[in-house]
Amino acid sequence: MSTSVAVIGGGPAGLQAAATLSHLGLDVTLVEQQNFLGGAVARHQYQVLMPDFSSGPELLKRLIQTVNEDPHVKVYTGTTVGSVLESDGTFHIQLEGAHQESIKAQAVVLATGFDHFNPARDGKYGYGLFPDVITGAELEEMFAKGPIRRPSNGEIPESVAFIYCVGSRDRQVGNTYCSRVCCAVSAKQAIELRQQLPKARISMFYMDVRTYGLWEDTLYWRSQEEAGVVYVKGRIAEVTQLHGRPVLKGEDTLVRGPFEWPFDLVVLAAGMEPSRGTHDLAQKFQVSLESHGFIQQASPMQNASLTNRPGVFVAGAASGPKAIEDSIAEGDVASLAVYEYLKAKVTL
Amino acid sequence: MSTSVAVIGGGPAGLQAAATLSHLGLDVTLVEQQNFLGGAVARHQYQVLMPDFSSGPELLKRLIQTVNEDPHVKVYTGTTVGSVLESDGTFHIQLEGAHQESIKAQAVVLATGFDHFNPARDGKYGYGLFPDVITGAELEEMFAKGPIRRPSNGEIPESVAFIYCVGSRDRQVGNTYCSRVCCAVSAKQAIELRQQLPKARISMFYMDVRTYGLWEDTLYWRSQEEAGVVYVKGRIAEVTQLHGRPVLKGEDTLVRGPFEWPFDLVVLAAGMEPSRGTHDLAQKFQVSLESHGFIQQASPMQNASLTNRPGVFVAGAASGPKAIEDSIAEGDVASLAVYEYLKAKVTL
Repeated sequence: MSTSVAVIGGGPAGLQAAATLSHLGLDVTLVEQQNFLGGAVARHQYQVLMPDFSSGPELLKRLIQTVNEDPHVKVYTGTTVGSVLESDGTFHIQLEGAHQESIKAQAVVLATGFDHFNPARDGKYGYGLFPDVITGAELEEMFAKGPIRRPSNGEIPESVAFIYCVGSRDRQVGNTYCSRVCCAVSAKQAIELRQQLPKARISMFYMDVRTYGLWEDTLYWRSQEEAGVVYVKGRIAEVTQLHGRPVLKGEDTLVRGPFEWPFDLVVLAAGMEPSRGTHDLAQKFQVSLESHGFIQQASPMQNASLTNRPGVFVAGAASGPKAIEDSIAEGDVASLAVYEYLKAKVTL
Repeated sequence: MSTSVAVIGGGPAGLQAAATLSHLGLDVTLVEQQNFLGGAVARHQYQVLMPDFSSGPELLKRLIQTVNEDPHVKVYTGTTVGSVLESDGTFHIQLEGAHQESIKAQAVVLATGFDHFNPARDGKYGYGLFPDVITGAELEEMFAKGPIRRPSNGEIPESVAFIYCVGSRDRQVGNTYCSRVCCAVSAKQAIELRQQLPKARISMFYMDVRTYGLWEDTLYWRSQEEAGVVYVKGRIAEVTQLHGRPVLKGEDTLVRGPFEWPFDLVVLAAGMEPSRGTHDLAQKFQVSLESHGFIQQASPMQNASLTNRPGVFVAGAASGPKAIEDSIAEGDVASLAVYEYLKAKVTL
């Protein structure tokens, strides 16, 4: 019998894990609930990736082609995990959906990714009520599909506001963590917007600008110095609407004054949450969640992919908010952990 | 002839790379210029690691023991790289110091780590002039060696200030990037300080608090809510001394007022720079540096460890500021990249 690994989730982390596991001599079944591979990059049609402005479609093409051309990787899209039984270190996984079969795996990689926070859950942003209030993911789709226009009337926006930390760092909505990438993604989007909207006023309303590491000057400073984006340290109390335009009410915490400013377009930098399936899969595979509902890393200083359960590993945003390149790296890290786990059990 | 890999640098990234390369069936020579392994963790005696308050010595013990006990890893401490010649994909490396020999390697991993910014280079902090102005690394050494006391007079400090972004995000000193971990490390240190100094006033002077991801509530919020640490958004113009105590002069950018506050102890959160040897090694191995002097990642979305030169890989803080667990993960990522590179060349 060949030694087989189940990878659950076909985003960047899962795709990388599937490819690398195969390179290490293992047979892989890659299970993806959507009818397409690529995870959030595909779902939201990310065109231009942070931090290096590389192409999202090209990244996906490479990752997807690699697994599709690999005879040792079975790709099951439109498929979900039903029941899971383990005996003697072998996982018997009943699949549902497009591939209703039972598979056996000696190890499992959970790469179930994230969902964006839905800003409709927090009434103060007016999301779902005011057509010109959109999410960052919806802005990505606008970049993909055509020119930037106000959804309400199709006009070119003359002023755009980004609101940071929507659904992140917010005890009231229950998400006390930071989503890591939204600051830098917003800076990237503002730089892209500037190319399309040379005259627009672009303002960022932030608590802290977390363009950490080498993103600092390449994204944050560049957005200010080249794209003329203005950063306002301010808390948004609510978004209302007046004369058909969204109005941001809040307090500028630097100049200590309240403001009430209309904008043509408001972009909500909505954070990351554990994907809808994560809780259910964690139960099925009996792995622990950490306090925010992400899959708990049992020993990150030893290996980022270890869970509390031997034979079950995690990669990518399933264990917390993460940038794409970090998710891809964790696909490798998980593959190595699987390899070493199985090497200790069987002769590969 | 066995297939051999040279790992340059014996910090967490290099140690992890050496161990993993061996697990993948390769022979490794680990070259470390210091007389000890462990990189910055050993050099500064980090006792309690961020983010999980795990033990630095235990981490090092595990990493070092693994390579020392591995018959496929030769460990050369006190050794540096002299000349490097490549022919037909084999690197001929002349070593200097404790092991003056020539080694052959089919691939090289550069894991040359970082140095802390030396605050004496920026006169405004009074570092080197005022005894009670210390660096975060020196505070770690205080934690390791004994109780926290004022260097000037041995008294228990009643007030402690941390200054963030020393040598980071600062065009004047030439470091335009953010060092990623100093915010969170300072929060960790403040929580530790509180245990020793239950009554001290502890203040953090910051530009942005970048406790990204899951560090937000576990370190930033916890330092405020459990340890009573006060965060002041403020820029420090200079540190002077009055009546034997350091005085912070600056502007509180939130309440818009100048301040001039004395403290018993001032901790400079000094950022990360490319290690002294990085530039020289990059020249010897003909790999490109990015704009800040770190080793350039050629294609991070494909693999974090790729450089512009085939056969030469990078791991850890040599390519930019990085947390310890990220450096360890990159040791794995680089090992896999080496493995796949060599697999394409020879039969392993």
